[in-house]
Amino acid sequence: MTKTAVVLLSGGLDSATVLAIARRQEFEIIALSFRYGQRHDAEIGAAQSIAKRAGVRRHVIADIDLRIFGASALTSELAVPKGRSASEISHGIPITYVPARNTIFLSYALALAEVSDSSDIFLGVNALDYSGYPDCRPEYIQAFERMANLATRAGVEGRHLAIHAPLMHQTKAEIIAHGLALGVDYALTLSCYDPDASSVACGECDACQLRLKGFAEAGVPDPVRYRVRMAAT
Amino acid sequence: MTKTAVVLLSGGLDSATVLAIARRQEFEIIALSFRYGQRHDAEIGAAQSIAKRAGVRRHVIADIDLRIFGASALTSELAVPKGRSASEISHGIPITYVPARNTIFLSYALALAEVSDSSDIFLGVNALDYSGYPDCRPEYIQAFERMANLATRAGVEGRHLAIHAPLMHQTKAEIIAHGLALGVDYALTLSCYDPDASSVACGECDACQLRLKGFAEAGVPDPVRYRVRMAAT
Repeated sequence: MTKTAVVLLSGGLDSATVLAIARRQEFEIIALSFRYGQRHDAEIGAAQSIAKRAGVRRHVIADIDLRIFGASALTSELAVPKGRSASEISHGIPITYVPARNTIFLSYALALAEVSDSSDIFLGVNALDYSGYPDCRPEYIQAFERMANLATRAGVEGRHLAIHAPLMHQTKAEIIAHGLALGVDYALTLSCYDPDASSVACGECDACQLRLKGFAEAGVPDPVRYRVRMAAT
Repeated sequence: MTKTAVVLLSGGLDSATVLAIARRQEFEIIALSFRYGQRHDAEIGAAQSIAKRAGVRRHVIADIDLRIFGASALTSELAVPKGRSASEISHGIPITYVPARNTIFLSYALALAEVSDSSDIFLGVNALDYSGYPDCRPEYIQAFERMANLATRAGVEGRHLAIHAPLMHQTKAEIIAHGLALGVDYALTLSCYDPDASSVACGECDACQLRLKGFAEAGVPDPVRYRVRMAAT
């Protein structure tokens, strides 16, 4: 019987790669994306294109309103920081941190896994590029998995529910090389925190900086368009 | 400085009691309720009355759509079971179980605690009446707390974030006695899974059965109205 996996799909480079990894492991995929008070819906469009190309069984888009928490740059009117180097980005808890975001996302994934008889959840967190986010660390993922096994029928009935974070210790260049080997079309992905109305990336925010640096180190061109293309640092 | 607690407030008897317990411990309260594809909004009205009476600092009502998961009797068109005895109710995973519900609720509470500089979350889960719900057990709450401390700034910065479940091992009669001693007005609460348009409780669903049995054992009258009042078993 084909196994089913729930894959958190943001529309970015990392989650597109994770989706390809789960497909390669012969899982049928239920993709899960969130519309959460973002200033841009372009991410959802990217997620839809990626999900369609990968031939997922189902793509669930959940509306959640993180704005009730008054949160951070990704959900409010705070300015997205521009022009920081990759080394500046990876220290401290960044302004773009959304409180408990991965916990909320994984909780929905857990509910969806349970109603779908799935015991596998995949997500694209990475401890190298985002060391400032508490909920991107391996010990966090392990603790969530342990909790999840106590929270659900799966755990009670003795099926082990696994949270897979296959990119945890990879550099962006390694992720890109891995994804290209799996046939990921990165032209479909959107990483930028501040794209324009045509989904053209700004080229200056933290996410663009990390992405451009990754493609440079991987020695391949980034197929998406940028308004400004700063020197990767 | 006054400490702030986030209290999950459903509008039912248990969470109204927990709110009073947190108030007695001198916390300022941020109450958090959910509108989640329920067939009745009466719960929200009850939560608002309880929050107002208790003098909470803020009452946040979050809209979440659990229906995307195709879930259970509390969120879909499945019939609410009627006329089961309390002993029947407390065995097995019940039809009214919503997948990962407490995990989703606690995740929102965690985000709200983080943006409010609160290190304390209270909820009214109970292992006696709801032994069939995996996410009402003490080991689940402990695992969530551990995960929460890894997920957030609070944990990273060395503040301990506590999940309080003060009703965990109390019988319904003990909860009621405790709440009455703290001045809880149970006339404001609504426990029924299937109230009518005037918020009159059905008297026959699992929640009504457990509530009526609790009041009977506590030796006090239940101040809410019922359409049918079955003999408590």
